[in-house]
Amino acid sequence: MRAFQTLVRPSEARDRYLAVLKPVPLGTETVPLEEALDRVLAADLVAEEDLPPFDRSTVDGFAVRAADTAGAGDSRPVRLRLSGEVRMGQLAGVEVRPGEAAGVPTGGMLPPGADAVVMQEHVRVAGTTLEVHREVRSGENVLPRGEDVRAGSVVLRAGRRLRPQDLGILAGLGHSRALVRRRPKVAVTSSGDEVVPPDRPLRPGQVRDMNTYTLSGLVHRAGGVPVGYPILPDDLQAVEAWLRRAVEAHDVVLVSGGSSVGERDLVADAIRALGPPGIVVHGVAIRPGKPTVLAVAGGRPVIGLPGNPVSAMVIFEVFARPVLAALLGLAEEPRFGARVRARAARALVAPPEREEHARVALEARGEVLWAHPLPAQSGLLTSMVRADGIVIVPPGVRVDTGGPVEVELLED
Amino acid sequence: MRAFQTLVRPSEARDRYLAVLKPVPLGTETVPLEEALDRVLAADLVAEEDLPPFDRSTVDGFAVRAADTAGAGDSRPVRLRLSGEVRMGQLAGVEVRPGEAAGVPTGGMLPPGADAVVMQEHVRVAGTTLEVHREVRSGENVLPRGEDVRAGSVVLRAGRRLRPQDLGILAGLGHSRALVRRRPKVAVTSSGDEVVPPDRPLRPGQVRDMNTYTLSGLVHRAGGVPVGYPILPDDLQAVEAWLRRAVEAHDVVLVSGGSSVGERDLVADAIRALGPPGIVVHGVAIRPGKPTVLAVAGGRPVIGLPGNPVSAMVIFEVFARPVLAALLGLAEEPRFGARVRARAARALVAPPEREEHARVALEARGEVLWAHPLPAQSGLLTSMVRADGIVIVPPGVRVDTGGPVEVELLED
Repeated sequence: MRAFQTLVRPSEARDRYLAVLKPVPLGTETVPLEEALDRVLAADLVAEEDLPPFDRSTVDGFAVRAADTAGAGDSRPVRLRLSGEVRMGQLAGVEVRPGEAAGVPTGGMLPPGADAVVMQEHVRVAGTTLEVHREVRSGENVLPRGEDVRAGSVVLRAGRRLRPQDLGILAGLGHSRALVRRRPKVAVTSSGDEVVPPDRPLRPGQVRDMNTYTLSGLVHRAGGVPVGYPILPDDLQAVEAWLRRAVEAHDVVLVSGGSSVGERDLVADAIRALGPPGIVVHGVAIRPGKPTVLAVAGGRPVIGLPGNPVSAMVIFEVFARPVLAALLGLAEEPRFGARVRARAARALVAPPEREEHARVALEARGEVLWAHPLPAQSGLLTSMVRADGIVIVPPGVRVDTGGPVEVELLED
Repeated sequence: MRAFQTLVRPSEARDRYLAVLKPVPLGTETVPLEEALDRVLAADLVAEEDLPPFDRSTVDGFAVRAADTAGAGDSRPVRLRLSGEVRMGQLAGVEVRPGEAAGVPTGGMLPPGADAVVMQEHVRVAGTTLEVHREVRSGENVLPRGEDVRAGSVVLRAGRRLRPQDLGILAGLGHSRALVRRRPKVAVTSSGDEVVPPDRPLRPGQVRDMNTYTLSGLVHRAGGVPVGYPILPDDLQAVEAWLRRAVEAHDVVLVSGGSSVGERDLVADAIRALGPPGIVVHGVAIRPGKPTVLAVAGGRPVIGLPGNPVSAMVIFEVFARPVLAALLGLAEEPRFGARVRARAARALVAPPEREEHARVALEARGEVLWAHPLPAQSGLLTSMVRADGIVIVPPGVRVDTGGPVEVELLED
């Protein structure tokens, strides 16, 4: 068996990998708004028109000239002549001249002449006379044309992952489709003669494939399209042949297992056979996740993740997610609430030469969150199921019980 | 025009509505793991077998009897006889007797007799002799059978929304399918003669439908299946006919617009025509979102949301999301990071009789987050696009500049 020659620090490994890979955003496609949720906008959305497109009332009430209401109160109502009524969805067919008022519903167009709206709660209608019991300022209860969006302004930036409200504003600006990035197609498989699909009975020494399912879920969450493949046997030619096809038909290839340093390190050997640049990093100073392969084959990113399910998840977050984000052209935006502060409920210790990515369960005691480290053996998938987040401890560092930690929350 | 008789407090409105609606979880269905992400588990997942199914090595190394390594060190190596090697995916065909060792790969089955594994970094192999340079404790570098999951234990609780790692553990326990709740079918439409679809040119006084798109996105995020319908005209018979069909074919009906108190309050009138129990709450003491209708028609929840896009979003969160959660049987679990503390960058003031749901943009200055209230007019959809979260201010309460606020983060 061979030992890793050198372990590369995670941040350096990522930088080195991206420097060789040089990922550029994939092409674009146009999708109906109904399918645009969570897609990444490929170009700035520039408003072609004002929103709202006209001065609108924000209440049910009466459009007036504000100056006419000066001094109005319950004991001194101002009397105006009702000149008509604005109907929703129509041109305000009425004008408000001095001493006049016109009924207007919420969202209705402010009629010419008027510059404010008195809420219906503050008036009394008597025939064609309106008694106004409250003074309004010019602009009161009016949403002026262009107040929400001004024509020519950038409303959404390219690289934004579309949220529900973004779909609304696209629609409001006259778009029934959105120009978005193509989603990266990601081949996902596991390797190893000992790995069997979940619906097959287990023979002694065998384990079930978990990674294809967990990694596919993570790919989906990260904005990619996962494509699961049958488990690869411990056969160099078979792995090589599969890899060759996989890099042709996908934007990213993820293979878990088979990348430990042992006589069976087939994935690394198969990657090497695919030609330069090949393996960029082999072995990362991280726990869990040391036996990681970061490679470029056939111009595509190929990542060999540890077979261990917890390690595979950690490595996905550290290396595969940034690659997918780059292929999607995802803009980096502050994600508030992605980290919380907590205190260590037990001491956390990183080994001398590896960055520890410890899984923790959170517990709120009054105002303070406590982070409970979950069992360290990286084979414990239930630690990921129970985990609320990850605490990163630099190599050789010890956090004592009660010490402060930053927890990177796992997505719900 | 009619005024609301009484405005019901939001929490009371929700309680009263759920008490009449009495939502129960929908039926179940079985889906392949590939489609189970974000679905809600319908029954506890009980492990039928131990995981791992056998004692496994957690490192590449040599299986030994720990007692044999007592006192081993670099200057005093212990010599053992190599009796064979364990192969992945196979029954450990070798036994480790006193004075013996057997090679074992990471994940390999611990052979009978052995109770620990020495890492390959701590040995030297010379022919059939193994020099052990480090003492190991019993159990060291071994993941015992059942350590991850014990047969008979509950691994995932019913009501859990499945995360990527949950799919992994389902697979690991031999499931290629999951029993999940049927997703609620939610009819979504907008009403009003002034509302036109996004791809139609605007005439004066008209506005584009935003809510169908925003609400559909929110329904999707909340675990439902949105079904968008054409905009309803201001015609009582048409609205009533549509509602009658909608409650037959869907689990939830959302109609935005047309629920303000005005002469055109058609949605409320149409709901009444569908028979008891009909409208449960009409008018909520909330800003924005006062003109909200919470109703039950044909045994189905029918929610009339304000036409205003920002109000509609707020009302969805406060009333529609809990209904969907109940229909999905979603378990309430702590969502860490869903709220953050901040300071008000400007004063926040709730009106005397309404709970304020203020949109805020967050800004990190050093260690402190500042919450910038976004323009108050509820017509400003860009306030939702720019918003990072919502601050709820109780009726009549003022938060001064610099005062502490809790921000409920909007989902990314």
